[in-house]
Amino acid sequence: MPPRICNFRRDPLRQRSLATWTHESRWLSIRTVQSRNQGTAATTPPRTIFSGIQPTGVPHLGNYLGALRQWVTLQDGAPRNTSLVYSLVDLHAITVRQDPKQLRQWKKESLAMLLAIGLDPNKSIIFHQSDVPAHAELMWILSCQASTGYLGRMTQWKDKTANEKDSSEKLKLGLFSYPVLQAADILVHRATHVPVGHDQAQHLEFAREVANGFNHTFGRDVLIPPETMISPARRVMSLRDPMAKMSKSHPDPNSRILLADSEETIRRKIKAAVTDSVDGITYDPEDRPGVSNLIDILYHCDAHPAYPSQDELAKDLAGLSMRALKDRVAETVQTTIKHIRASYAHFLNENDDLDKVAAQGAEKAAKSAATTMKAVKSAVGLI
Amino acid sequence: MPPRICNFRRDPLRQRSLATWTHESRWLSIRTVQSRNQGTAATTPPRTIFSGIQPTGVPHLGNYLGALRQWVTLQDGAPRNTSLVYSLVDLHAITVRQDPKQLRQWKKESLAMLLAIGLDPNKSIIFHQSDVPAHAELMWILSCQASTGYLGRMTQWKDKTANEKDSSEKLKLGLFSYPVLQAADILVHRATHVPVGHDQAQHLEFAREVANGFNHTFGRDVLIPPETMISPARRVMSLRDPMAKMSKSHPDPNSRILLADSEETIRRKIKAAVTDSVDGITYDPEDRPGVSNLIDILYHCDAHPAYPSQDELAKDLAGLSMRALKDRVAETVQTTIKHIRASYAHFLNENDDLDKVAAQGAEKAAKSAATTMKAVKSAVGLI
Repeated sequence: MPPRICNFRRDPLRQRSLATWTHESRWLSIRTVQSRNQGTAATTPPRTIFSGIQPTGVPHLGNYLGALRQWVTLQDGAPRNTSLVYSLVDLHAITVRQDPKQLRQWKKESLAMLLAIGLDPNKSIIFHQSDVPAHAELMWILSCQASTGYLGRMTQWKDKTANEKDSSEKLKLGLFSYPVLQAADILVHRATHVPVGHDQAQHLEFAREVANGFNHTFGRDVLIPPETMISPARRVMSLRDPMAKMSKSHPDPNSRILLADSEETIRRKIKAAVTDSVDGITYDPEDRPGVSNLIDILYHCDAHPAYPSQDELAKDLAGLSMRALKDRVAETVQTTIKHIRASYAHFLNENDDLDKVAAQGAEKAAKSAATTMKAVKSAVGLI
Repeated sequence: MPPRICNFRRDPLRQRSLATWTHESRWLSIRTVQSRNQGTAATTPPRTIFSGIQPTGVPHLGNYLGALRQWVTLQDGAPRNTSLVYSLVDLHAITVRQDPKQLRQWKKESLAMLLAIGLDPNKSIIFHQSDVPAHAELMWILSCQASTGYLGRMTQWKDKTANEKDSSEKLKLGLFSYPVLQAADILVHRATHVPVGHDQAQHLEFAREVANGFNHTFGRDVLIPPETMISPARRVMSLRDPMAKMSKSHPDPNSRILLADSEETIRRKIKAAVTDSVDGITYDPEDRPGVSNLIDILYHCDAHPAYPSQDELAKDLAGLSMRALKDRVAETVQTTIKHIRASYAHFLNENDDLDKVAAQGAEKAAKSAATTMKAVKSAVGLI
């Protein structure tokens, strides 16, 4: 079955704006674009949107423009009958070796950042995955349904085993089996929609297969096969190597702009961004990846682009020097993230608040998962 | 590292007797051979003994003589500083497809049987594995440590993939990864000793590897590598095919004696046991497997064998006809299990009692596991 693509471009939720996201807004007082009871609850069936992010450091601009900003848009534009479940998937973070102290700190920073970008624990369930045992419980039950052959054909596993540095002998089970945990993450909350990037579409398809297989085996609709919400491509590339995606794991920290970077740091990193020595500004991702990436950033930072495309924007920038373009990009990025940075600094210092948000999120997520686990265990015969 | 074998023959616990196990004893009033405070607590370090059995039907005589009777012996002879944790490992039962209604019934029957053989919820922690999420949680964390190569070399996986009926493509992940769940079962309760049969020794060795690997990675003694308690071979063979072990899954129910079988059924099954037409009774497992199996049953049913070996016992039986031998075996089996059968019938009707025992067991097991999970999560950096 091909993925049922729910394209944001055609989705009314996509029309919402983040324009009212303001510096002074805290999660307890965030104003929404549209009051939640004005939603389309009467006409659309209930939805549950699930998404996760690994708590492996402060998110960068690519994470924000590509995914996190959408989380907030979805939250603020959601009709009353939509549930939003956002998880810091720490159990996925440990499939590769992590420094425990560092991971602990990252978990805290990541939670502070989710609040800083505008996620509101009163509207969305925000929680650390490892706080909710049902994820691992369902993962095991689904392990008894998922075939090793299918897992072995997953692109990311094939890439790992093809890598000469890693003998597949030594590869850890978690690297092989994590798509089943991902499926459990989604299915345990009865998610109907999952916003993912193109590189995750295969894993969503797997989650659907697992859900359908389970339902088929046990003869009833216990699990909900989720729909993929593929977002329009909003890839941000590395500032140092514009042919590669901006990444948390790139060894050069100047390759990425973190949401917590100071204005000075932003200016410095963008100034040092790899471009080219061609005269004038044009949008040509293939031949001028560095410049085009800067135009992309400029274009995507605007939540309602004033131009229909990057090409049109580039035409208006044509006369600028590279230096002037970089100044403009730095200015725009600074405007985009300055409130996030300030809010992040605030939340990061409020340890008690963070603990409370995590505890409340865990409680709500456990409740959300409990309904599914009861149905699953009953279907299997465990209860 | 070779398994450290703790042989029962040399273990003082083995000297305890089950002689006082009586029909009228209920778990609330079981008399023990030795009062628990007379144990050797002062001289031996604290122990935790863990073992599990799949709740896939009423156990047979082979399960009882090979493992379950030992569980009771260990319980009743344990010094005060020994904890006993016995699990009905229902999460393992679902690695192959089960009828949900059947599994639910089996779980109930298995719990009733554990009580019937003399396990006492006031002395041992008795619980359904799926009631304690920490087993699956630790399983995932250990999945991030266990190498796929090691798992692929496990004998049981190799047997499965070698079986032409099963393409390894279609084999479920759970059949590949269950040794990690087994390791988690043991390690989550900080078991120091695990009584297992020879066929499980490889899995215990794996659990030790995982524990040592984890401790090495995280630089402290978080997990306890368990010691194997290999019991003296007390294999009971199939009554229909005495070259194969007595098994729950053999299609012919006459191949096994269930602990709930009536006296009449026992007599009928033993009467129909495959033997041979050689005159006289001799103990020769290789050439006379059927007769030797009957002698083994006779020998093992006696909790303190009056003979030093099956050979010596066979000498005293030499003049019997096959029919007389079978009568004697049936009589002995009947004596061995009649109290169990009666007690089982009683417990099986006490649904509320069973639910209460399961709930209390789950609570105690969850508490036992919580200490480990806190240490593990802290070591990994999840908390």
